[in-house]
Amino acid sequence: MTVSLVGAGPGDPDLITARGLQLIRSCNVLVYDRLVCDELVAEAPADAIRIGREHMEQDEIHRLLVLYGSRGLDVVRLKGGDPFVFGRGGEEALALAEAGIPFEVVPGVSALTAVPAAAGIPVTHRGVSPQVTISNGQGRLDFAALARAGGTLVLFMGLARLREIASGLVEHGLDPETPAAVISAGTTAEQEAVTATIATVADAAKGVRPPALIVVGDVVSLSERLAAVRGTLALA
Amino acid sequence: MTVSLVGAGPGDPDLITARGLQLIRSCNVLVYDRLVCDELVAEAPADAIRIGREHMEQDEIHRLLVLYGSRGLDVVRLKGGDPFVFGRGGEEALALAEAGIPFEVVPGVSALTAVPAAAGIPVTHRGVSPQVTISNGQGRLDFAALARAGGTLVLFMGLARLREIASGLVEHGLDPETPAAVISAGTTAEQEAVTATIATVADAAKGVRPPALIVVGDVVSLSERLAAVRGTLALA
Repeated sequence: MTVSLVGAGPGDPDLITARGLQLIRSCNVLVYDRLVCDELVAEAPADAIRIGREHMEQDEIHRLLVLYGSRGLDVVRLKGGDPFVFGRGGEEALALAEAGIPFEVVPGVSALTAVPAAAGIPVTHRGVSPQVTISNGQGRLDFAALARAGGTLVLFMGLARLREIASGLVEHGLDPETPAAVISAGTTAEQEAVTATIATVADAAKGVRPPALIVVGDVVSLSERLAAVRGTLALA
Repeated sequence: MTVSLVGAGPGDPDLITARGLQLIRSCNVLVYDRLVCDELVAEAPADAIRIGREHMEQDEIHRLLVLYGSRGLDVVRLKGGDPFVFGRGGEEALALAEAGIPFEVVPGVSALTAVPAAAGIPVTHRGVSPQVTISNGQGRLDFAALARAGGTLVLFMGLARLREIASGLVEHGLDPETPAAVISAGTTAEQEAVTATIATVADAAKGVRPPALIVVGDVVSLSERLAAVRGTLALA
């Protein structure tokens, strides 16, 4: 195996997979994203080449992976969360496939479930939500479809547009009293969570900093019942 | 910490998190689901109490976790995938919270992304799908909402109803040519994947055995372009 596209998990370094950690510990080259924590970068061998992707365009990453991969080096491409959930891992996999470079995809724990969990919110819950819709929260959003999707809605990169998203959902029929949460830096020591309703969440989350996940749906109210314990002893 | 609700990941034992593995290796009691692989159960200390949940009702599990937890033992509740994605982890967390037992939730890699990935399918892909809807595929499904959701649709437990689901989606406006895949025992040595269109997938997947994940959407066609490499060297 030469190139591995590895999910680093949602933030907490202990949430990487056993397989991912093993690959980092034995790699020759580590190419990592800005949101990947220092602790995981430090797990690479002392003589490994470490390349932060800051300031690099996506096609430069592709060239780099193909270059080192074609030399037969063990390359780990470490990406926040899961490589295939808004991670552009598919594009990197295609670039490698087209260049004939053998590769492996090692999934990671996505923020999708881990970040709400760290705030006491299960994204699915029997009798409350049997369904989850996840969106990157960017581009043209189909508010009509999102408002009537039912279940839980998780938006990945929508913080800057939170007010527009909240009004869009309510205008298209979502109950204004629907619980909503914004969770910043989830699963890390800097985690901050705000809960409100979809009508009030944009005001409540003023000042919250990215990266942040938006969760909309009745499951958000479960965080109150889980919070009593969480307050003293902390969920993961 | 006493009780930990730990996600075992999608099937491949190497896809458990570092934190989850550490907790299993130091637990006093391990309560595990039927779909959890033997390799992970074997990681518990030799003198740990091992309890398979087969034939146990959900409220018996709750009583067991509260009982051992209240004794201050380190209890790992090991669940397939992620505890909060159709895993009933929320119910177990509430039972512990209500009994005042401290607990931790350790998320796991969900089949949601890992199983399609193992079949060469990224659930999101730039220019193809910016959105994913996941459903347990059980109970009364809102086919109208699912058919117009857009993006990728992932159904967890719908294999037995595959024909009804496929017709329901097409009758409510989903293009019959939409690519669809059924992946059985994903990420394990027994993995079997069938790709077709939503119109033909029920016939194509005849004989496929549960547990199986259903994936519907244009991202499924990417598996062809990723398959060349996968065929010879295998994705994770």
